[in-house]
Amino acid sequence: MPKEQKGGISPTRAEDFPQWFQTIVRDAEVAELDHVRGCMVIRPWGFGTWELMQRTLDDAIKRSGCSNAYFPLFIPLSYFEEEAKHVEGFAKEMAVVTHHRLEQGPDGLRPAAELPEPLVVRPTSETIIGRSFAKWINSYRDLPLLINQWCNVVRWELRPRVLLRTTEFLWQEGHTAHTSEDEARERTAQMLGVYRDFTEGALAIPMIAGEKPEYERFPGADTSLTIEAMMQDGKALQSGTSHYLGTNFSEAMGIEFTDESGERRHAHTTSWGLTTRMLGAVVMTHGDDIGLRVPPRIAPHQIVIVPITRDDPAPVLEAADELAAELADASYDGSPVRVQVDRRDRKPADKRWEWIRKGVPVVIELGGRDIESGVVTVTRRDDPDLKREQLPRERAAGLAEALAEVQSAYMSQARERLDARTTTEVTTVEQFRDWFSGEGTEDGGFVRAPWSEDPATLEVMGELGVSVRCIPFDAELAGDAKCVLTGGPAKVEAVFAKAY
Amino acid sequence: MPKEQKGGISPTRAEDFPQWFQTIVRDAEVAELDHVRGCMVIRPWGFGTWELMQRTLDDAIKRSGCSNAYFPLFIPLSYFEEEAKHVEGFAKEMAVVTHHRLEQGPDGLRPAAELPEPLVVRPTSETIIGRSFAKWINSYRDLPLLINQWCNVVRWELRPRVLLRTTEFLWQEGHTAHTSEDEARERTAQMLGVYRDFTEGALAIPMIAGEKPEYERFPGADTSLTIEAMMQDGKALQSGTSHYLGTNFSEAMGIEFTDESGERRHAHTTSWGLTTRMLGAVVMTHGDDIGLRVPPRIAPHQIVIVPITRDDPAPVLEAADELAAELADASYDGSPVRVQVDRRDRKPADKRWEWIRKGVPVVIELGGRDIESGVVTVTRRDDPDLKREQLPRERAAGLAEALAEVQSAYMSQARERLDARTTTEVTTVEQFRDWFSGEGTEDGGFVRAPWSEDPATLEVMGELGVSVRCIPFDAELAGDAKCVLTGGPAKVEAVFAKAY
Repeated sequence: MPKEQKGGISPTRAEDFPQWFQTIVRDAEVAELDHVRGCMVIRPWGFGTWELMQRTLDDAIKRSGCSNAYFPLFIPLSYFEEEAKHVEGFAKEMAVVTHHRLEQGPDGLRPAAELPEPLVVRPTSETIIGRSFAKWINSYRDLPLLINQWCNVVRWELRPRVLLRTTEFLWQEGHTAHTSEDEARERTAQMLGVYRDFTEGALAIPMIAGEKPEYERFPGADTSLTIEAMMQDGKALQSGTSHYLGTNFSEAMGIEFTDESGERRHAHTTSWGLTTRMLGAVVMTHGDDIGLRVPPRIAPHQIVIVPITRDDPAPVLEAADELAAELADASYDGSPVRVQVDRRDRKPADKRWEWIRKGVPVVIELGGRDIESGVVTVTRRDDPDLKREQLPRERAAGLAEALAEVQSAYMSQARERLDARTTTEVTTVEQFRDWFSGEGTEDGGFVRAPWSEDPATLEVMGELGVSVRCIPFDAELAGDAKCVLTGGPAKVEAVFAKAY
Repeated sequence: MPKEQKGGISPTRAEDFPQWFQTIVRDAEVAELDHVRGCMVIRPWGFGTWELMQRTLDDAIKRSGCSNAYFPLFIPLSYFEEEAKHVEGFAKEMAVVTHHRLEQGPDGLRPAAELPEPLVVRPTSETIIGRSFAKWINSYRDLPLLINQWCNVVRWELRPRVLLRTTEFLWQEGHTAHTSEDEARERTAQMLGVYRDFTEGALAIPMIAGEKPEYERFPGADTSLTIEAMMQDGKALQSGTSHYLGTNFSEAMGIEFTDESGERRHAHTTSWGLTTRMLGAVVMTHGDDIGLRVPPRIAPHQIVIVPITRDDPAPVLEAADELAAELADASYDGSPVRVQVDRRDRKPADKRWEWIRKGVPVVIELGGRDIESGVVTVTRRDDPDLKREQLPRERAAGLAEALAEVQSAYMSQARERLDARTTTEVTTVEQFRDWFSGEGTEDGGFVRAPWSEDPATLEVMGELGVSVRCIPFDAELAGDAKCVLTGGPAKVEAVFAKAY
């Protein structure tokens, strides 16, 4: 149990946002870095949330025509030799298996039985899935091939942060092959759309969608699309990316097909991924100084009932179970409402507070006096004052509707913040420096401004810790627009921000 | 596409069972060993089956009160130092990460940046989950703690076999902690029951449940329970195990709690697991000389409709979609029937044959002539002759019931085989040798016989490649029973078999 029983999260968001994040992730029992530097334990409350995210996104990926499969964790070193750009992007963060046995040495256990060829723990699976594709694809009739994999990947992090930058993380990676560039580009855009619908619809996090500038592309991609979210400190969090890989990987790995006229051609491929860092995005978007707030669509318990039992607990527990059954019969988001009666041997006030801190959308208290008066006592997590409101018992089943209200309240709050803290009024490099030199939850945010794409501008950005998050799809550029950083002619409208 | 278009699997089960298994796993596109020695690619048809297995078992595990969580892939070497017995059991098959970077050397890429302490890729997670338990558990109020994890694990296999013995495999591992031995033992038995219900109910594979003899226990366990299945060659396949770990791991890792009287005590722990090898068990239990037969409850498509289109495909496809919608509205096993209309650009006869070979329970052909005559043409996979039967169109929605029949036919066939090939009539070591010296799908099977538990008997068993699979829960032992191997007094009734 967290120590600060009721005082809320210390420090607050305004006092120290990074520390607030660490505290809330720990106190709401979402996850912890433990055992191995940079590796995470995802605790039941956090993992239950991830499972619901998975289920929702997986359904959408399948509806788009993809099938799930599974590929090896280990990749032979030689597989990377042929994809020069790709390996360059990942070589610095690869965990390498060199032995396949332990033995007792004079100072304890040590590795033994060296492998003839070292194996890399997958940082991403293009090189291995592409080689399977090369084997499976013969004719245009085998295309499109649409595969998705849910798995763990490892990228060695020198400065790990729980949920946001971890050495091991969980994700899905989609890989598709197509006969034509048009079809592959369409799939790239389609999957970004799937991500956007998922993050906005289920996670209540509004997104800015666009294309990555060349210098931020996935290693080996021709085009990288992205959705970017704004956290409560005004920083961007890249939330899902979808890449058109051209024939780069096909040529390296021999992904070829015979077309309708009998000619051999290279397939056009895509890949796209979304990770457990989105759990971090949920915390940093919706959390407040009291604790976590989980959007109802992904909350493991949408409603928790805390029975207040004194002398004879039986009638109260019975009433609680009855109420739970009624609520479960009600439907939200096409499924029965997920209700939990908290029967644990702890004080009711502590239980209520624990669930509020964990971000359960609705907490109901039910005691003997409530039952006598025919009411239930309700706390809604979207109420900043956490008022206890009494609701006639016969209207309790209607609380399923409150879930829809909470979901949409979270989305509105996040969208208001995104809008309020995105400026189009920064037009000079001085204003740009000024905008990005603050810190914390009041300063900064996103700048939308014309950009020249001049590599020299990366230097100013680097100084400030700012990057081009994307060229948004809804970009507007006047014919005579001037680059915010050079004052010279602009080529695109870009979104600039500090980022996680 | 497999080469033998219609001839069935070559070799047949009777000709060469191991080769039959390899062929069917490849031709039905279940899985393949590829890329890395001993590592598997699980293809969409196989993985779709695994996903349904996962969903069914996961629901049962959650109903039993457990929550899912996720723990690191990597385990520090030092974590194994303290569990001597445990490390002894796994040391010979552990993949070890020693570096966290690649660099270009004179002969190509090579590992760089050696880790201060090598990391083991988890072969099982007692050592890491136990340490988290030690941190999370303080008081008896925190118990029982009931955690499950779905993940990949690695055990280096010197003689890998697809699905059955692979270096990397997928599984769930449950870990629980309790205040008392009784409660922990009860949980151990309860989870074996969950496995048995799952394998018999969903996979249609009958089990013999019992306790492992001491020499076959999980490294570090006080008691190991198991369910054992019989494959079509009479060999046993261990299908799920559940271990009572006593306080062995608690003492090594400090899993302690304060009891109601204020005293510090060690928790009693359990662990239990079931793996992707059960996909192999499905193949080896239900496959025939034509191909795979997937039990309806875990078939990714339960019914496939093959439209037979000639000049104008539109009306046939429309009729197929209508039929699919009707079938999906019907319910089997509490869910809508999983129907697929196969619209691919291939010959209808090839499509029908492909789905039969992949083991879809019911294949429907639907052409212009069928529509005119108001019929559909049905092939049931449980019919060894694969007769095409015409069914009046208005009765087609009733095919949901056929799924229940197929499921139960597979179970009956497997149970008949298990019963027929289990003998209680082997009473001497000569008969024992004779029983186990045959090979293939006609000879051998399980021997139930009295056993002395004498370590010397392991030698005879070793010669024959036989082991004690379990001491079955329903064992019966006459007071004067003689050990089948020594002729001396017997202590238990055991099930002996060759095993995968």
